[in-house]
Amino acid sequence: MQQIQLSHGGGGQEMNRLIKDLFFHHFTNKILLKMEDAAILPTNGKIAFTTDSFTVSPLFFAGGDIGKLAIAGTVNDLAMMGAKPEYLSCSFMIEEGFSYADLKTIVQSMQKELAVSGAKIVCGDTKVVPRGTLDGVFINTTGVGSFYHSQTLSASAIQAGDAILLSRDIGCHGSCILMARDALKLSSNLISDCATLWPVVEMLLDKNITLHALRDATRGGISAVLNEWCVASEVQLDINEENIPVSDEVNGLCELYGFESYDLANEGTMVLAVPQSEVAATLAVLRLFSVSASHIGNACHNEEGNHKVILHSPWGSRRYLDLPQGELLPRIC
Amino acid sequence: MQQIQLSHGGGGQEMNRLIKDLFFHHFTNKILLKMEDAAILPTNGKIAFTTDSFTVSPLFFAGGDIGKLAIAGTVNDLAMMGAKPEYLSCSFMIEEGFSYADLKTIVQSMQKELAVSGAKIVCGDTKVVPRGTLDGVFINTTGVGSFYHSQTLSASAIQAGDAILLSRDIGCHGSCILMARDALKLSSNLISDCATLWPVVEMLLDKNITLHALRDATRGGISAVLNEWCVASEVQLDINEENIPVSDEVNGLCELYGFESYDLANEGTMVLAVPQSEVAATLAVLRLFSVSASHIGNACHNEEGNHKVILHSPWGSRRYLDLPQGELLPRIC
Repeated sequence: MQQIQLSHGGGGQEMNRLIKDLFFHHFTNKILLKMEDAAILPTNGKIAFTTDSFTVSPLFFAGGDIGKLAIAGTVNDLAMMGAKPEYLSCSFMIEEGFSYADLKTIVQSMQKELAVSGAKIVCGDTKVVPRGTLDGVFINTTGVGSFYHSQTLSASAIQAGDAILLSRDIGCHGSCILMARDALKLSSNLISDCATLWPVVEMLLDKNITLHALRDATRGGISAVLNEWCVASEVQLDINEENIPVSDEVNGLCELYGFESYDLANEGTMVLAVPQSEVAATLAVLRLFSVSASHIGNACHNEEGNHKVILHSPWGSRRYLDLPQGELLPRIC
Repeated sequence: MQQIQLSHGGGGQEMNRLIKDLFFHHFTNKILLKMEDAAILPTNGKIAFTTDSFTVSPLFFAGGDIGKLAIAGTVNDLAMMGAKPEYLSCSFMIEEGFSYADLKTIVQSMQKELAVSGAKIVCGDTKVVPRGTLDGVFINTTGVGSFYHSQTLSASAIQAGDAILLSRDIGCHGSCILMARDALKLSSNLISDCATLWPVVEMLLDKNITLHALRDATRGGISAVLNEWCVASEVQLDINEENIPVSDEVNGLCELYGFESYDLANEGTMVLAVPQSEVAATLAVLRLFSVSASHIGNACHNEEGNHKVILHSPWGSRRYLDLPQGELLPRIC
């Protein structure tokens, strides 16, 4: 089989073969193999539940592909709530004529990324649509996570006085996709930050470090996360620009295009809000995974109810960091 | 706003506005409004979990639209396991330039269909992709259901001697989509069977009727369901053709195109396997919802291990009903 045919989505023999030969082969587990209309999952009374559809272009990029992204992205959304990623559904939307070899590479990449958190794909769906009605492959993954720790993390749990940390340097995924688009003929060492964050979060939780909020800075970058936090927690966030880690490559690309690195998408980079007393312990864990982890600012009470992000430049000037407007780069994730 | 723009998927201000003005407005509930990375759901220890992506073309058809389908389809997969549909995730993939009015109609249709089962949309995702990279709107819904009844339904739970029932006449959705495709200039009264089946299933469960297996006959029609059941339960299924309810319109269209009505997709029609002792009680419930509900055959043991579906014609002849091959009609659901 060289290419995916419409019959692979028809609900008949060909679809059964695709599911068994490709998906079951790589995602095998007892629950998935039951092949019922729905998977039956044990839970311990409270679950986290999140969904994401992935449409990234190009499908393969430096540091990952749509498969890795589809696993890491959804697993990260569970991890950001302090939930252990357990079960994923996986829905493939495939254009007729798509390369079977590429689909297999994507599936293998998903299998590899699942191993990082231990999450399992327990149910799925396959749709094949006629040529020209979808560009390549889109993947939806929806995740279920369990709570083994008693901490309640929330965008609305940030308190005045909390420290705001970043797990690593920002903007790599956005820059990497920008570079990979056909129109750009630049070369660089940029690699997407695409990664599963559960191992870091698990270590923070296992060490009983008090966390108030975690969020992976995907579309909209850290600008979106920080602005949402201000509103949800009714705090002002004072961020020191010089403490925000940005690589030279990302800075260079931003200058070229007039982008703000704060607005660029990340796919394995999180912002954390923790009490000041936990800063050292948190950074110690974060730095096991990335040397660029940093304490970028603090939350404070604003007397006038002005819940904004204020960027402090190294020269003492200040400006608001706004929620991004417009669309920097479609099909980033 | 007349059309969806790329910025509506950018993770910034415009996306927030779309989410709040359209999605939150129609799907409002306490869990959804928390807007965290993942929804936190209470469960009672065991859940059903299922996913489906919907790509139907045309988006609006007699008896429904992609929104109604996206709710009914996923809710039905939960109901088929005997699980009460509780929580759904909802991911919109939208082509740049898509009509805002049409999107609103779709969302309203989803809201209406959710009310039939009482399920809630608790988390979501919105992706807008450039013109030409996706045809219109695709929707993924992933569902979580709870078990309030102790019955375990499974495709592998059918026993020799069980009766096989159909909840209504078959092939309406497939025929209706076939009719609606641009190339066809026929007129008829055909209406898709697209519907939420939870109310019927709930009544069967509430009456303590013993059910062995339920399955909605979507892609691949009843041919796919019956063949999967034979293999999963290691039984032979003897089906009487004359007892399978098919409307004159569907039969006519099948003759015209050379299709088998058994292979046509349904979106609100289920096959049931129940002990013979429950046939009367089950049919009594099914007929409250459709007068065409019927006892179409029985499961039996095959000495030679031949787990096939055998169709018995009114004239005494017999033939195998095979799993459909090829693709009758892409983008049916």
